[in-house]
Amino acid sequence: MSLPATVPLTPSAATPAKPAGPRVASARLDNGLDIVVVPDHRAPVVTHMVWYRNGSADDPIGKSGIAHFLEHLMFKGTKGHPAGEFSELIAGLGGQENAFTSTDFTAYFQRVAKEHLKICMEYEADRMSNLVLAGEVVVPEREVVLEERRMRTDSDPADLLNEAVQAALFTRHPYGSPVIGWQSDIEGLGRADALAYYDRFYTPENAILIVAGDVEPAAVIDLARAIYGRISARGETPKRIRVREPDVRAHRLVTLADPKVEQPSYQTVFLVPSYRTAASGEAEALEVLAHHLGGGPASLLFKALVIDKKIAVSAGAYYDGTALNDTRFYAYATPAPGVSLETLDTEIARLIAEVAAHGIAEADLARVKTRLVADAVYAQDSQVALAHWYGASLAIGLSLADIAAWPERIETVRAADVVKATRWLDARRSVTGFLLPEAAAAA
Amino acid sequence: MSLPATVPLTPSAATPAKPAGPRVASARLDNGLDIVVVPDHRAPVVTHMVWYRNGSADDPIGKSGIAHFLEHLMFKGTKGHPAGEFSELIAGLGGQENAFTSTDFTAYFQRVAKEHLKICMEYEADRMSNLVLAGEVVVPEREVVLEERRMRTDSDPADLLNEAVQAALFTRHPYGSPVIGWQSDIEGLGRADALAYYDRFYTPENAILIVAGDVEPAAVIDLARAIYGRISARGETPKRIRVREPDVRAHRLVTLADPKVEQPSYQTVFLVPSYRTAASGEAEALEVLAHHLGGGPASLLFKALVIDKKIAVSAGAYYDGTALNDTRFYAYATPAPGVSLETLDTEIARLIAEVAAHGIAEADLARVKTRLVADAVYAQDSQVALAHWYGASLAIGLSLADIAAWPERIETVRAADVVKATRWLDARRSVTGFLLPEAAAAA
Repeated sequence: MSLPATVPLTPSAATPAKPAGPRVASARLDNGLDIVVVPDHRAPVVTHMVWYRNGSADDPIGKSGIAHFLEHLMFKGTKGHPAGEFSELIAGLGGQENAFTSTDFTAYFQRVAKEHLKICMEYEADRMSNLVLAGEVVVPEREVVLEERRMRTDSDPADLLNEAVQAALFTRHPYGSPVIGWQSDIEGLGRADALAYYDRFYTPENAILIVAGDVEPAAVIDLARAIYGRISARGETPKRIRVREPDVRAHRLVTLADPKVEQPSYQTVFLVPSYRTAASGEAEALEVLAHHLGGGPASLLFKALVIDKKIAVSAGAYYDGTALNDTRFYAYATPAPGVSLETLDTEIARLIAEVAAHGIAEADLARVKTRLVADAVYAQDSQVALAHWYGASLAIGLSLADIAAWPERIETVRAADVVKATRWLDARRSVTGFLLPEAAAAA
Repeated sequence: MSLPATVPLTPSAATPAKPAGPRVASARLDNGLDIVVVPDHRAPVVTHMVWYRNGSADDPIGKSGIAHFLEHLMFKGTKGHPAGEFSELIAGLGGQENAFTSTDFTAYFQRVAKEHLKICMEYEADRMSNLVLAGEVVVPEREVVLEERRMRTDSDPADLLNEAVQAALFTRHPYGSPVIGWQSDIEGLGRADALAYYDRFYTPENAILIVAGDVEPAAVIDLARAIYGRISARGETPKRIRVREPDVRAHRLVTLADPKVEQPSYQTVFLVPSYRTAASGEAEALEVLAHHLGGGPASLLFKALVIDKKIAVSAGAYYDGTALNDTRFYAYATPAPGVSLETLDTEIARLIAEVAAHGIAEADLARVKTRLVADAVYAQDSQVALAHWYGASLAIGLSLADIAAWPERIETVRAADVVKATRWLDARRSVTGFLLPEAAAAA
């Protein structure tokens, strides 16, 4: 039931779609459910995930937060199993479970000893079509969500700033609304909204089953057919209606000053194409550019701001490429004491301009590419992370072939592509966020 | 067929709802059409207006620009009268005609010698229900609108900045989209959109007929009943669906730098309640506050920035109160040569803080109120402006009684109300726009 931060200031493990190797099996049931099995025999455990191709960016207008609210309600019991029974069962088996809502997808998962895969499937299939949404459950749960919002966002200036930055970057597109929803919208969510949303999106055609672990693909697919196959098809995949972000050509600076801020921070966000919307090779070039600019201590930003000039205590950049629509490229820094955010802004703009003007050295390019591909390989060490990559990539409409080809496509990025990708890092396409202690803003 | 600028930098005559005196008659036909007659016997002419209670803020999501596009299409002919015939007729009678789309309404008007009122009614009633929207008309007209957008907005940095400022202020509410629409949306508008929009909004229940001029109310109402009364009722007034603007608590600075800018300019816009959304008396207090701060050469901003400190060549403030939803309070200035926009920003914030801290002198309050009420009286000199006030006020849901009571409600504003109204001028509720020549922005 976790919710990703609106703007993680370090790259989320959920983001890039980069695993390389495992022999993956896939199938589609007659009712439209997609199945992907990722064998991983290192331990006798299994990760069972169901991904729905709907996230907060599919929330109807004026109903922001409904995707996340529904995620909460999915734990409230079905016709056959009362609220809490599934969670208690998983806990009793020594397993883990969670669920998360993002802008483009919603997912539910359990990690259990492999012999318990069947029971996970049964409960998950059950709540795909038998959810009970009684009024006496919906209304109190809305209060839980409102309280979650008050605790996480409304009392946290950094999160409030992130919300305002996203709203400024996406002035019309729904990525501009927070996953948890705007308070005024959440307050209006009711049982009818939850029911309509559930009926629209919680269907086999809209779901992807990912099973990673110590399993044989054929057996998993057979089991899934026996359990999930009982759910009736609805006839088609739900439509995702996304407004195109207009071409705003002015720089926006969002400033939030609050007495609760102890450490100022700087971020700037560019509107860029995603793996789904970019021209061929361009998303990979943005990935390489992000890593070159701000991926770890060998990056340009870290070296210049933290090591050489000592004007920042942290700095980095990352590309949020796994998105259905045009997406975000971030650069961020935390100033050293006494350094203004304007100074960081100037320095970061200078470094980006330097890459645009002078390109990337072949040695740097080779290092960045090796590191990106290696990261993808290392990441396979985590079964959950691996399953997450497959789920997130497939949920935004990439194919297994796209996922498999990713390392090779990173390898083919040339220095000229990286330079060309800097064209997206145009101040006129960006929003900068300043988080400041209250006193500094009164100036 | 004119289109109001997204952000007029001087108060538009269309804005406040303030006429006082004339003996106005009103009626409602059985089909729901509202009729208001404003007698004005100074000259043998008549102004005939039809107002529809829909504007660009009622454009469906992803269809921004449809209200304005439909306004164009309303000149493209009906079953009985080909395109151009109505306009040629008015021109032949020595009359004037126009139409305009705003965020909350769309209106069509003719001004003719009084004996021609009947023919105006006949043509206007005809296109309320008999419009022909053939594909061969719709598509070329879309190109006309796109060209209008290119000429007015895309080639004008000031207008592009205004769009970006509005989009930043209204991050979810439709006032954030320009009346003409976003280019990407306009490109997707087709015949089906136009038809659906026409069918939804161009109905007698949604319309207000305003006739101002040398007429007798009873005769006008009889004539309207005979002509407009033939149109069938649709059953109900169309619904206006407006998303509530979330409570964003961060200041936003939007900067546009362009080589075409010769004169930098400064604006700051606060999100404030309108005559429709404010608590009792609060809109009137905002009106007085705006006039005190920036209404003409006796105002605080003008005296401080232009006369005393000579840091600006113009400065002012105004309140855009005639709106269905929460609206805008502007302060603006044009710097004297060599003065930075930051300097203007600091000075304007200081003047606002001064009113909040020290209030308004009774003599100033009396002068401002006298002036506001006098302006409303003087404005009745223009028959078109008078009709416009009635139309705009009624179209956002104010009553004839509200319009009549306005001068009295201004008179009752106390100094304490003006101070209290400054609470809305909080930087955290505002967007500031900087328009700069290209060179200055490279810093």
